[in-house]
Amino acid sequence: MVLMAHGSGGKMARDLVEKVLVHALGNPILDVLDDSATAPFSGRLAFTTDSYVVRPLFFPGGDIGRLAVCGTVNDLAMVGARPLYISLALILEEGLPLAELEAVVRSVRQAADEAGVQVVTGDTKVVEKGAADRLFVNTAGVGVVPDGVCVSGANARVGDAVILSGTIGDHGIAVLSRREGLSFETELLSDVAPLAGLVQEMLRVCPSVRAMRDPTRGGLASTLNEIAGKSGVCIRLREQAIPVKDAVRGACEMLGFDPLYVANEGKLVAIVPSGHAEQVVAAMRAHPYGRDAAIVGEVVEGPAGRVLLSTAIGATRVVDMLTGDLLPRIC
Amino acid sequence: MVLMAHGSGGKMARDLVEKVLVHALGNPILDVLDDSATAPFSGRLAFTTDSYVVRPLFFPGGDIGRLAVCGTVNDLAMVGARPLYISLALILEEGLPLAELEAVVRSVRQAADEAGVQVVTGDTKVVEKGAADRLFVNTAGVGVVPDGVCVSGANARVGDAVILSGTIGDHGIAVLSRREGLSFETELLSDVAPLAGLVQEMLRVCPSVRAMRDPTRGGLASTLNEIAGKSGVCIRLREQAIPVKDAVRGACEMLGFDPLYVANEGKLVAIVPSGHAEQVVAAMRAHPYGRDAAIVGEVVEGPAGRVLLSTAIGATRVVDMLTGDLLPRIC
Repeated sequence: MVLMAHGSGGKMARDLVEKVLVHALGNPILDVLDDSATAPFSGRLAFTTDSYVVRPLFFPGGDIGRLAVCGTVNDLAMVGARPLYISLALILEEGLPLAELEAVVRSVRQAADEAGVQVVTGDTKVVEKGAADRLFVNTAGVGVVPDGVCVSGANARVGDAVILSGTIGDHGIAVLSRREGLSFETELLSDVAPLAGLVQEMLRVCPSVRAMRDPTRGGLASTLNEIAGKSGVCIRLREQAIPVKDAVRGACEMLGFDPLYVANEGKLVAIVPSGHAEQVVAAMRAHPYGRDAAIVGEVVEGPAGRVLLSTAIGATRVVDMLTGDLLPRIC
Repeated sequence: MVLMAHGSGGKMARDLVEKVLVHALGNPILDVLDDSATAPFSGRLAFTTDSYVVRPLFFPGGDIGRLAVCGTVNDLAMVGARPLYISLALILEEGLPLAELEAVVRSVRQAADEAGVQVVTGDTKVVEKGAADRLFVNTAGVGVVPDGVCVSGANARVGDAVILSGTIGDHGIAVLSRREGLSFETELLSDVAPLAGLVQEMLRVCPSVRAMRDPTRGGLASTLNEIAGKSGVCIRLREQAIPVKDAVRGACEMLGFDPLYVANEGKLVAIVPSGHAEQVVAAMRAHPYGRDAAIVGEVVEGPAGRVLLSTAIGATRVVDMLTGDLLPRIC
């Protein structure tokens, strides 16, 4: 079990780092254990960070460790970068069972291996029982943006196609189901996955991808509002084109949620020049994390910063950013 | 006051980011607000991270914001790197007064400006009241190691001099005094400061600095044990040469602490070839953060991994790593 002395900077802290963390995560850059990791680098740097406070720590399809790696890897991938290195900083609540920490660290290793990144630096703090909720994780990530790639939320242009990589809402509903003890006919798993490989396939067939985002907190609706706002364009979605699993649709109906606002952790939305859209979708469908990829809308003439939805019955409604707080501590 | 919806990924989250964070921290790289920051980079990359859980958030001489910038900047400097970019990830407890958050963010900006780094990316999460203790901060940092510089805890060699940049224990005792409501005759301030400028002066006169560490948690004793262990050498300190403020010495006597184990946040210990030691000390003394720099010991023949202290009365004692937990949540 985690004790305050594990965060002391003394012997127990060293033992925790060496026996639990470096033991599971080790690689030649991490193993040096100086105050900073160092490694050769050349090119355009991408740098990002996210903290993870998901509750519960373990949920159907993943855990906070896998989430912390994938979330940060995906933020790097969304600017077109190839992820290289990540950091891992843990805030542990006194009393956390060591077995849970070890399970999370194993997940970190597994997800990092899958994503092709190395954990090269880290930190561990311990707070008293009651001063944190079990375990909070922060990862920062460093990647390299290939020459000629310029992906930004500000680059969407009228005429571009909007591509979604797969079904929406899986992560949010999977976490909620575990937290609230809900059960569905078919078990729903979080989609948490590293998307850098998928993005590399997309950039291979279309280096001029304009914008990408992974629609996490706030869901697809909030993410597209961000892009529409930053690019000063209007985006029109076709409701029928947006893939939603039956279990997610059912849960959302029961709970009064709109899947457009529910978090994803293994999906991306991309804005690409329309002439490349079919090719990009084909490349995505050939990748395990893009099998359900589809063109779900387009960038159109219209009020800047606005997202519209053409519904199944032919109506149009405005899709605003999330207001309030749909699902706290979903990531 | 911070509400759960500030962490939602929706409108209130966007407002918090734009009106509080980007407003205070803005720069051309941060302002883009894509999923990752991007910037040109070339050379050897240094990368580090630390989370900060100090209690209280505001203490004599600093606050968690200044601490979070300086701690990470210093970890970069300790491998000889010039700090360039940092990330800022906040975990907020619901109910935290916005004025406190704003004060911390102002401190971040001020410390970053002093250290010559830009906050280029960030994240904000909110957890329910009682699920965190007010505010936890994580910073990661990226820097560039100049060609020809190779500073590592594993590089100390017999004959090298051990240099300390100033008085020890100031930070630990300052935070403790605020936390416990202790008062001393003269107010003691934390030494929290960015050391990258000092390090650049040191490397200018001696590019062959072997090892550097900032003795934070665990204090000078634990830090030198780490270096002795990694380098496989014995380090001998001269007690009389180690600068300690009277207020710190007095507080330590009263509380039963040894200043060698008390945390610092604006000090460094360096191992340099003995022939360069006087020159390095002179350069340090010319810098505001190195005025009390002194040679405090040397690397000697002896048991690998051992730190010894020659006391004022001529005895020698073994200085071990910290055992147990002297001062929880000091950083």
